[in-house]
Amino acid sequence: MIRAKCELSLRKLGELKIIDMLERTLGVSPQAIVGFGDDISAISLPGGKAAILKTDMLVGSTDVPPGMTMRQAARKAVVASVSDMAAKGVRPIAGLVALGLPPRLTRKDVHDLAIGLRDAQDEYGFAIVGGDTNESRDLTISIALFAIADPGQLVLRTGARSGDIVAVTGEFGDTSAGLKALLEKRKGPRDLAKPLYDAVFYPRAQLSLGLKLANSRTLSASIDSSDGLAWSLHELAKANGLGIEINTIPVSKSAHDFAQRYRYGPEKLALYGGEEYHLIVAVKRHKLELACRAARGKLKPIGVVTKEFDGVRLIRSGQTVNIPRKGWEHFKTR
Amino acid sequence: MIRAKCELSLRKLGELKIIDMLERTLGVSPQAIVGFGDDISAISLPGGKAAILKTDMLVGSTDVPPGMTMRQAARKAVVASVSDMAAKGVRPIAGLVALGLPPRLTRKDVHDLAIGLRDAQDEYGFAIVGGDTNESRDLTISIALFAIADPGQLVLRTGARSGDIVAVTGEFGDTSAGLKALLEKRKGPRDLAKPLYDAVFYPRAQLSLGLKLANSRTLSASIDSSDGLAWSLHELAKANGLGIEINTIPVSKSAHDFAQRYRYGPEKLALYGGEEYHLIVAVKRHKLELACRAARGKLKPIGVVTKEFDGVRLIRSGQTVNIPRKGWEHFKTR
Repeated sequence: MIRAKCELSLRKLGELKIIDMLERTLGVSPQAIVGFGDDISAISLPGGKAAILKTDMLVGSTDVPPGMTMRQAARKAVVASVSDMAAKGVRPIAGLVALGLPPRLTRKDVHDLAIGLRDAQDEYGFAIVGGDTNESRDLTISIALFAIADPGQLVLRTGARSGDIVAVTGEFGDTSAGLKALLEKRKGPRDLAKPLYDAVFYPRAQLSLGLKLANSRTLSASIDSSDGLAWSLHELAKANGLGIEINTIPVSKSAHDFAQRYRYGPEKLALYGGEEYHLIVAVKRHKLELACRAARGKLKPIGVVTKEFDGVRLIRSGQTVNIPRKGWEHFKTR
Repeated sequence: MIRAKCELSLRKLGELKIIDMLERTLGVSPQAIVGFGDDISAISLPGGKAAILKTDMLVGSTDVPPGMTMRQAARKAVVASVSDMAAKGVRPIAGLVALGLPPRLTRKDVHDLAIGLRDAQDEYGFAIVGGDTNESRDLTISIALFAIADPGQLVLRTGARSGDIVAVTGEFGDTSAGLKALLEKRKGPRDLAKPLYDAVFYPRAQLSLGLKLANSRTLSASIDSSDGLAWSLHELAKANGLGIEINTIPVSKSAHDFAQRYRYGPEKLALYGGEEYHLIVAVKRHKLELACRAARGKLKPIGVVTKEFDGVRLIRSGQTVNIPRKGWEHFKTR
């Protein structure tokens, strides 16, 4: 584990390259319908169904902002995994939790952590049925979720076609504004701060919306926005070998107000945040109305899938701006 | 997360109490055939089968001894989970890996880690199909395994009856002797050290033996010995509300030789080690011969299940000795 001077460090290597390396080294399993590179993995089962598997790890030093309680941190760890299932239109049925606990934690901390896990399992209607605990230098909450699905009903990252409508299930920016408010101590008046702090401390996975959208059979592709709006749009475009043209950036009112008060770029807050658990979907063009109805008004079109270019561009008032592939990626110097 | 002075710290609380607390707080799921408290969890599926789920976390600061490579550490993380499936007679079909990686690690470290995961998946015949990576202060490799089984064929910790034979699939002590050799720099001659180091750096899960024993339908209960021989015997006894009387302590020749040379108690090495992945099984008395045949000579009877007392006792040459419930438990001061 000694690091030679010329070796590339992980910060430079980046999370995506690490996942690529794992995938290349481990190879592709013939049983895997969906492997690395989508929000979940899927294994074909005898009888035609698929087992859906997802793991996500929350780490204290990087994922738990100042002021977040143990209960909130544990709940958030589960929300992150549920969000990936939501993006695929899959309801989790069971989960496991592996804990790495610093010895300074108390019995009460662990109890709070357990309550946070219970909050999440009750909220999303599944059960955590097993676990493992360890001592660690860094608080670690690793969640693994399990579900059963019909493989034909999974909404993958791939499947979008040129002309499909790109839509989102919420407005962006609250989480990054909230983190700035916390880290830079810019909380402003209570009315301004509350929705931002809620976004950070009490994020919500769009499970019922994801299920409704998947059931409506109107989507051609989907991804969750946990790596940030810009990054996730890029991932969606790349997975399909196509481009995405957006003509609006969906900034939340609260993020906008925060940005104005403290002179941030509101659209930057919305584009380059992360751990914001909306869904970004491609909707078959002729089914847009049906999709909007299924989402009961919670789906907002922001652009189209295109074969004209790669990557993501904002075209607005006749001007074209490239949206860089930046976002919320662990290990990358931000 | 601030610790009040009178609060019980995790080291005193112990791993078992933490799992108990999780279980009590999270409640029992009606879908869970097997929940917390066995080596794996099991969920009933439509059609009568069960999904088998297992998670196990390896942490650098507590589970990776000096001299262990990244490749060995990653392989070991998987072996620990496979061993639990082996004890239940279940073959894993897919796995996930969540990584917490200290930023000082290099690209080569991560590549070695990936190769260690591949070693394990190839060795035990399943595929790692997805994962997550994060930055962490402590190297963390969290494995989740998935399998499908017939619930009636699962060999649980419960099910043993008074009179059943207690047997083990190997001899004990190599891992604790190897750790002592490493930590206390007592390696002795090469011939002595090699099997001990192999046990530490290259542990093996008894998957094919576990499957053969389960298929032979001769077992009434089973546990893996990863928490140490004494501890695991106590767990097996407690799970069944019975006692275990052993009349021999299965010490390996290499642990015995090491103990003699450096004046350790060989039986202590065998009883109170850990991360030694044998199986400890209860065999229906009239099926012992069949079980031994199924195990092709790799099953060694060491005692019987009894209703005469609780806990674990060694009865040998007319003398009775209580075997204390000590072992390899994270968080406990050892």
